[in-house]
Amino acid sequence: MSVLVGEYLFRRLKQLGVGTVFGVPGDYELALLDLPAKEGLEWIGTPNELVGAYAADGYARYRGFGALVTTFGPGELSALCGIGGAYCEFVPVVHIVGYPTTASQQSGRILHHTLGDGSYDHYIKISSELSCATAVLKNAATATAEIDRVLTAMLTYSRPGYIGISEDVAYASVPAAGLEKPLRAHLTNDPETEATVVAEILAKLEAASKPIIVFDGGAGRRSWEPFADLVVDAAKLPFFVTTLGKGVVTETSPLFGGAYCGVGSPKSVIEAIEVADCILWLGNLPSDFNTGMFSENVKTANIVDFQRFSVSVGQAKYAVNITNILPKLISALRQSTTHQARQPILPPARVPHPVPASDTITQDYLWPRVSGFLRPGDLVITETGTSQVGFLSTDLPARASAWTQAVYGSIGYAAGAAVGASVAAKATGEYKRIVLVTGEGSLQLTVQAFSILARHGLPCVVFVLNNKGYTVERYFHGFEAAYNDVPLWDYCALFKAFAPTVAGVQTYKVAKTAELDDLLSDSTFQDEAVPKLVDIELPYGDAPYLLRGLFGRE
Amino acid sequence: MSVLVGEYLFRRLKQLGVGTVFGVPGDYELALLDLPAKEGLEWIGTPNELVGAYAADGYARYRGFGALVTTFGPGELSALCGIGGAYCEFVPVVHIVGYPTTASQQSGRILHHTLGDGSYDHYIKISSELSCATAVLKNAATATAEIDRVLTAMLTYSRPGYIGISEDVAYASVPAAGLEKPLRAHLTNDPETEATVVAEILAKLEAASKPIIVFDGGAGRRSWEPFADLVVDAAKLPFFVTTLGKGVVTETSPLFGGAYCGVGSPKSVIEAIEVADCILWLGNLPSDFNTGMFSENVKTANIVDFQRFSVSVGQAKYAVNITNILPKLISALRQSTTHQARQPILPPARVPHPVPASDTITQDYLWPRVSGFLRPGDLVITETGTSQVGFLSTDLPARASAWTQAVYGSIGYAAGAAVGASVAAKATGEYKRIVLVTGEGSLQLTVQAFSILARHGLPCVVFVLNNKGYTVERYFHGFEAAYNDVPLWDYCALFKAFAPTVAGVQTYKVAKTAELDDLLSDSTFQDEAVPKLVDIELPYGDAPYLLRGLFGRE
Repeated sequence: MSVLVGEYLFRRLKQLGVGTVFGVPGDYELALLDLPAKEGLEWIGTPNELVGAYAADGYARYRGFGALVTTFGPGELSALCGIGGAYCEFVPVVHIVGYPTTASQQSGRILHHTLGDGSYDHYIKISSELSCATAVLKNAATATAEIDRVLTAMLTYSRPGYIGISEDVAYASVPAAGLEKPLRAHLTNDPETEATVVAEILAKLEAASKPIIVFDGGAGRRSWEPFADLVVDAAKLPFFVTTLGKGVVTETSPLFGGAYCGVGSPKSVIEAIEVADCILWLGNLPSDFNTGMFSENVKTANIVDFQRFSVSVGQAKYAVNITNILPKLISALRQSTTHQARQPILPPARVPHPVPASDTITQDYLWPRVSGFLRPGDLVITETGTSQVGFLSTDLPARASAWTQAVYGSIGYAAGAAVGASVAAKATGEYKRIVLVTGEGSLQLTVQAFSILARHGLPCVVFVLNNKGYTVERYFHGFEAAYNDVPLWDYCALFKAFAPTVAGVQTYKVAKTAELDDLLSDSTFQDEAVPKLVDIELPYGDAPYLLRGLFGRE
Repeated sequence: MSVLVGEYLFRRLKQLGVGTVFGVPGDYELALLDLPAKEGLEWIGTPNELVGAYAADGYARYRGFGALVTTFGPGELSALCGIGGAYCEFVPVVHIVGYPTTASQQSGRILHHTLGDGSYDHYIKISSELSCATAVLKNAATATAEIDRVLTAMLTYSRPGYIGISEDVAYASVPAAGLEKPLRAHLTNDPETEATVVAEILAKLEAASKPIIVFDGGAGRRSWEPFADLVVDAAKLPFFVTTLGKGVVTETSPLFGGAYCGVGSPKSVIEAIEVADCILWLGNLPSDFNTGMFSENVKTANIVDFQRFSVSVGQAKYAVNITNILPKLISALRQSTTHQARQPILPPARVPHPVPASDTITQDYLWPRVSGFLRPGDLVITETGTSQVGFLSTDLPARASAWTQAVYGSIGYAAGAAVGASVAAKATGEYKRIVLVTGEGSLQLTVQAFSILARHGLPCVVFVLNNKGYTVERYFHGFEAAYNDVPLWDYCALFKAFAPTVAGVQTYKVAKTAELDDLLSDSTFQDEAVPKLVDIELPYGDAPYLLRGLFGRE
């Protein structure tokens, strides 16, 4: 049996759980785009490549693997910011790039999309900074091995890979036999080290009087998520989340103590975290935005630091894999009579978030109010900026999940990622509500992402926080500077203009708390599975209290 | 006298003719953005970085130099496709990137916008593939020399440069004295070689019986443009343009013979070009799209090939600079009695472009019809795809100019570039009409560029060729493939929704030839200096005859 190289690639992706491929067509990849459908994959064209990259990222966070196809040169470069974000935040998105034929590459002629200098390796050099593995397929004899090498690295490191595929090689016939051997991550597995780590952790927990768990950024990846609630259940310890960890674990548990973001956090949370004498810190990711600008105050010696490829217990670092060690830890905790006999230590009572009494909608009003709107199973995606911080004041119902891109922090990401997540959710065949909360400044970067919601009938709820500027930037510098203003757009009109022939697209504009309350309580708004947008008018410069506190600006 | 490093940078830009700086604010650059206004420069925020990069490119093509400011990481990566285009097509755009403080860079902490690995050199490595010079300013003592080095390289090579500026260095005080010495391109100037080249060219012309001139891509840059009409006037030879050269030279001259794009060109043009025994080829740029997919048929031995840093006469290549050699050639031709005595050889009569009689608007109808709409002084920007080709059938009035990005060929470029050109034109204080012709598929990539037109009151006329797909891609492969469809948007509604509070924005939708004729003849439409958009409905897959001919598809 033989297959085309392009078929081999898409069949591999299907094996890895990819059902949809995103991208923008370009002439070096057009023939390649005839192949996904033959392999049972859906093609979703995106208005531009950046939106496509973000969508593939959102899809990959949801399904475990994502794919983006662009054309050589301008197409791939336009996607790079999105690929950089996936690299930074450990999201496995394969970037497939349509290259000219190998003969054209060798001809020395000036092809369009080149830099005009006859060189074809500028772009792969660029992408190599943002990929865990790269390949340009120029030889059918080695193409399948190269594909497998890149995809295996991606499985291992959970990061983007780059596969350039020359037009002719895409259509070269190769043996199909390799496809029978499934791809797997290359992970170390040393039972002895694993046993040592588990024993050390248990001993540290036993010696502690105030142990807690913190769920952080690394834990918000598909490979870790299944273990989050199980760790809580087995350890019976109070637990907290960070900005990046929010949405990973079930917050309705009585053991949930709230969100920690350094100095601006509620006092009860700060005290609980800072007095803890043993912290199981899952996916510890001490970035500036995730730590209240490095205002966390915990002793490293008290931390059991769980990373993808290592666990550190105090000063000792062990090379173990998270997906091996977590089940063993859970099992050991369950079998330990000491641990099972321990009465759960409840976290301190949570202080209600301040809710102003004005009829103007502010973020201090909004975020607690959103808690009552959310339903079990919702997925909430928040944007870098005020929504990332404000969302810490929203309580999540059971089985709700959430994510945000707080390390890389590329504004515009959330809208594209929400589209990708919506596609992924729809493909499961179950109705799942995706809730996007973004600021108008961020939205302006990737507003055309909305077009995909309508075109593919994706039931996403979009909240636009409209406060006339790049608000988080105002807090950084230049509160009233003109460069922090954004132009006024009519977001409701835009949302509809992107879908003039699609029925059912809903838009709303609210400015008063009663209008917001009525809308969020409305059963049609709650239940109708159509794309909808709510333009929320907020005061100039309005930000959540956690952010104001962080910047000492009340 | 001392200045801040940031002030030094902006003052240098002002010396180079930059009046406006484009970009998107980000926290590592916010304080830097307080400085342009102090130096008398205008800041124009763009909805995203890609639009900003294209706008800076359009501005630089118009004014000779452009500047873009983005933030470290996501901001700069989002602009890369635009910077790549400027690199490929010789447009000097300086990319200024706001870096974290040098202390932060040395701290090893995970700052947002990094890749999370503590390394700060990924992004400059990436940009070095797309820049003629790069620097990250980490030391005030060398900062001004580094700035001057990058800007001088840009003047010399007419290509992008990259200047990363750490937050603290931007505000460090340095001596202002260096600013008194103007920056100049480093160009060789060997009078002996120049004299030889001029003599060789004159001899070659004298020996020829059918000499002509061709204006091509390289000639469409600010440093060459002033010489285009003068060469024609001095040489008194028939002249032609290529796709990339159209708009460089005055077409109303009786010596103008038409546009050459290889095999699909009008027969009269093909014959004139292919029988010529001496061709002064200014800015020869033999890329695929510019040569009818390499279907040009001229003998290299007959070509005098004028490049930026060299002139080749037959097999002999001389290192001379175009801005030195052109005035000397013009002067020599004027002083040569032989050449001045020659009766102008008129080009063959031009065959009218075919104009269909149907009342449906097609591109074969549209492009000749646009000729009558254009007025002296207009600047027309066409997009990669059908408009780039169709525009060859439009006749330009006197002093009209035009450009397109046919080598790099990044769709979405034209909308951003038109905005940048509109800003540049407005800043001259003279009313200049910018005409953008783009396809709806291209427009979808950068549609938010429109927001800038309204926000800043820029009188740009936008024609959207709406034929339900990526039409040039249909001709390449997959004529009816779904991946070549684009979603239906309401462009008129979008144009207005980007400017809900701006009066005077005009939109029109036309589908019949009579509607188009009425609109193009309407004096208000002609004269009113407001942003306007015309959504032109064309048949599915409609393309100009030149393009259909090239693909053998009628």
